[in-house]
Amino acid sequence: MSGERLIYLPLGGAGEIGMNAYVYGYGPKGRERLILVDLGVAFPDMDTSPGVDLIMPDISWLADKLDRLEAIFITHAHEDHIGALAHLWPTLRKPVYARKFTATIGRLKFEEYGLPKDAITTVESRPHTVEAGPFKVQFVPVAHSIPESGGLVIDTPAGRIFHSGDFKRDATPIVGEGWDDAVMEAIAAERPIKALMCDSTNVFSLHEGRSESTLKDPIAELIKNSGGMVVATTFASNVARLKTLAEAGRMADRSVCLLGRAMKRMVSAAEESGVLKDFPPVITPEQALEVPRKNLMLIVTGSQGERRAASAQLSRGKYLGIEMKEGDTFLFSSKIIPGNERGVYAIVNALSEKGVNIVDDNNGLYHVSGHANRPDLEHVHRLFLPDMLIPMHGEHRHLREHARIGLEAGIASAVVTNGMMMDITGDVPKVAEHIEAGRTYLDGSVLIGALDGVVRNRIRMALNGLAMVTVILDEQDRPLGEAWVELMGLPETGKGGRNLAETLETELTEFLDGAGRKILANDDKMDEALRKIVRQVSMEEIGKKPEVIVVVSRLAAE
Amino acid sequence: MSGERLIYLPLGGAGEIGMNAYVYGYGPKGRERLILVDLGVAFPDMDTSPGVDLIMPDISWLADKLDRLEAIFITHAHEDHIGALAHLWPTLRKPVYARKFTATIGRLKFEEYGLPKDAITTVESRPHTVEAGPFKVQFVPVAHSIPESGGLVIDTPAGRIFHSGDFKRDATPIVGEGWDDAVMEAIAAERPIKALMCDSTNVFSLHEGRSESTLKDPIAELIKNSGGMVVATTFASNVARLKTLAEAGRMADRSVCLLGRAMKRMVSAAEESGVLKDFPPVITPEQALEVPRKNLMLIVTGSQGERRAASAQLSRGKYLGIEMKEGDTFLFSSKIIPGNERGVYAIVNALSEKGVNIVDDNNGLYHVSGHANRPDLEHVHRLFLPDMLIPMHGEHRHLREHARIGLEAGIASAVVTNGMMMDITGDVPKVAEHIEAGRTYLDGSVLIGALDGVVRNRIRMALNGLAMVTVILDEQDRPLGEAWVELMGLPETGKGGRNLAETLETELTEFLDGAGRKILANDDKMDEALRKIVRQVSMEEIGKKPEVIVVVSRLAAE
Repeated sequence: MSGERLIYLPLGGAGEIGMNAYVYGYGPKGRERLILVDLGVAFPDMDTSPGVDLIMPDISWLADKLDRLEAIFITHAHEDHIGALAHLWPTLRKPVYARKFTATIGRLKFEEYGLPKDAITTVESRPHTVEAGPFKVQFVPVAHSIPESGGLVIDTPAGRIFHSGDFKRDATPIVGEGWDDAVMEAIAAERPIKALMCDSTNVFSLHEGRSESTLKDPIAELIKNSGGMVVATTFASNVARLKTLAEAGRMADRSVCLLGRAMKRMVSAAEESGVLKDFPPVITPEQALEVPRKNLMLIVTGSQGERRAASAQLSRGKYLGIEMKEGDTFLFSSKIIPGNERGVYAIVNALSEKGVNIVDDNNGLYHVSGHANRPDLEHVHRLFLPDMLIPMHGEHRHLREHARIGLEAGIASAVVTNGMMMDITGDVPKVAEHIEAGRTYLDGSVLIGALDGVVRNRIRMALNGLAMVTVILDEQDRPLGEAWVELMGLPETGKGGRNLAETLETELTEFLDGAGRKILANDDKMDEALRKIVRQVSMEEIGKKPEVIVVVSRLAAE
Repeated sequence: MSGERLIYLPLGGAGEIGMNAYVYGYGPKGRERLILVDLGVAFPDMDTSPGVDLIMPDISWLADKLDRLEAIFITHAHEDHIGALAHLWPTLRKPVYARKFTATIGRLKFEEYGLPKDAITTVESRPHTVEAGPFKVQFVPVAHSIPESGGLVIDTPAGRIFHSGDFKRDATPIVGEGWDDAVMEAIAAERPIKALMCDSTNVFSLHEGRSESTLKDPIAELIKNSGGMVVATTFASNVARLKTLAEAGRMADRSVCLLGRAMKRMVSAAEESGVLKDFPPVITPEQALEVPRKNLMLIVTGSQGERRAASAQLSRGKYLGIEMKEGDTFLFSSKIIPGNERGVYAIVNALSEKGVNIVDDNNGLYHVSGHANRPDLEHVHRLFLPDMLIPMHGEHRHLREHARIGLEAGIASAVVTNGMMMDITGDVPKVAEHIEAGRTYLDGSVLIGALDGVVRNRIRMALNGLAMVTVILDEQDRPLGEAWVELMGLPETGKGGRNLAETLETELTEFLDGAGRKILANDDKMDEALRKIVRQVSMEEIGKKPEVIVVVSRLAAE
């Protein structure tokens, strides 16, 4: 086995929460056979990625090594784990393995994008094993906030890895199998765990996590004590929560209606894959209109303030004919993901204006997280007793804190971020190489690199506005008519109420009239000179230097 | 007194946290004499106001009634209360009254903008009284997170108003006078409080607030137990906190250095106005470079993640030659204001990469809020026993909750948002009129209306990118050469790797060559047709419809 090595390389998800993509490799250096675990997206925002549709890991390192890539494993169907699969699979074209619910969601996406659905193979959980080159991979049921999340037992000639996926230690997760300490102990007893790659999301939550099953009674109590219509929101993919909410609604003698496309898709995928049974009967939005408000409960999408989802639409006005009114209750059975505060509070304030009673998670009474908290992580470390711990699924601060905890417990732990290829063949993780690990944007229908400058220019236009200058020169490079200026995203008038475009045109025309042939005949010099004038004059007039596009048209002697 | 009325009209700050501006009026309907309390700013963000420098209340209602405006009162020197004064005072040109520290800050701003500093009059606190038309106004010291915050006793022929300003019930605020229940009781005993206009910021904080004075010992303890350099950040204007931090640093045997312009300006303004005494000696950044790390403490700006402030700079690299290293400690003696999470966590993660230990407020051990919590608000309601309560300084959800509490306590309470003119002459507040209460943007050196479309166009360019088309027509309206396309913020290549600009040019030129005189001769039709082609072709090529600027140049027969 000398000369062969086991490597770990996160391409996404390590140093951020989002766009998970982890590569494992085994073989001779530089010729390792590879598998990819997860291929997720992150979501754009106006600050850093305006106009972008999705953010995905840059997989060019993998794309150069397609002959070495054996397979893709998807741990669960959250967008940050599966969301990039349909977009990047055409580059990779390798078999995809997932548990049934995840595979169902994956195939829906493949269908939407015209990709071969049979590229995705449904895998039973352990002891069922997928062989992929030197890797033997088993899916181990773990509890999370979506059905059938899977940890992976990855057996390699160099040892056994446990890749946790996203998980919480919940023995009674309502939907699907719960976390089972005995199963994990058996895995470690069967073969020692060389490396534990572990979810770090909730490492700063100091109390032990609570089970999904603790929510139903308090929520039912809340609904019983509410007068008007009750609307509850949570993540559409949290099928267990949907069931809890629906059952709580039924306990409180209410008809339940699901609103929002994503929610219905998730419930039917869960039913189709057999993981969801006994979902309480629901009524259609049309039927809901006929039900007295005090007997009605809606379960809706948009818990994170998404502008187009049902929550936002209900906060602004009617949605499918249904309108919230004074005395109704809106329950956020969710937590705000950092960065979404503005969107969520916009909904809360709009609902407040309607006189709706707003109820938040009430310190965990009406919501529990899907990730393991610190005491649970520590417990899992002890269960597996790995040689090494590599925290994943976290920002740098999460990874570092998680590694600190591991080190304190005597486990060789390393903070490994996107692009750091680790050699984990030995007893401790060692940095083998640094890979350029960037981001790819899905922008409309095009994939662009995050550093291509496209988005940077959008941000500049948003911050500075745009001035566009058109100049026509005749065959002898003499200005034909005056310079023409169009503005966008800039105030019309500047100092003393002067029209900015006109002021710019006057200054530019004056310059052109006085400019020598040397400048007029030279495109670069013209561009530079005109740009400079626009920026200087704008600065004087409006205190701002816009982005400038200069178009010099030269009439050719034809 | 019949026919005279007392009105209250928030122009900003009611229905949002930011840009406070409250108008009071007394007199015959439509001829009330007016005073303005506070004139603050709100801060722009990329989502709603990219490129904007400051957001201010739209004061056009006031600007139309300058002959009726008597004076401006500024309760304290936070930007959301004083920040718009220098920008909008040239429109109002009325005497400004403030307590000494606030006046000092105001005059610094007036100096910067070349405005007459003597427009700002320093006012002693109660019993000193400013007469402004029918209003008699006294400043009452309240505790807050900046020196010399003032509540206002506003006496009118129709009764006494208490305008709380921003406050907390802190009897030992370290700097300046504390909140004094006895003073408030005396005010209410002297003349019954008709209306209490009251800070609502912390109405959702259910525990009683803690005093600034509880922080020093735990912070000193933290610093003593820290190995390397200690850096602490808080709001620059929180002079009491700066003093607490500096004293805690001294208690832990460290030299203290203040970093960040805002911080030094605040401390010297506080010393100049006499409110700050005995600030521990500080060293310069140059001296700091000579001090062993374990004996050094920096107090820096940028607790909210501001990209250019000292915190952000230290997280990215050196600042004034000082660099954070592994084992150093960074203390956020602050809370994240909702919406600033991304910026703050960017700093935390960058510091984490450097190996710095990051300490947050630790559930209030190292930070206390400057606003009254719910039990404190309830206590204040009981102290003043007002006829009516009008919550202010809050988003709708805060105002509504605060009003609910008031109603429960038997006080006539109303949710009043920006633009709602209330008649408060009688026993209960009544809506008198709705005013158009918008926002004004400071954009570079220009004031623009939030709805002018300038910012909307910036957002559109950021989301959609921009295509600019230039077409030249000859004297007979025939195309001269080909259409020219410039792109900004758009991918260069679309489907099948085709160059997008070239594809657009080909399609546009083809259209022009086939277009009839009727279209070619008509600017509007040309614009519409070319725009449509650009959007359609772009949609096919890149899945996105850009913003389009069309410039048709017609060569005139001269």
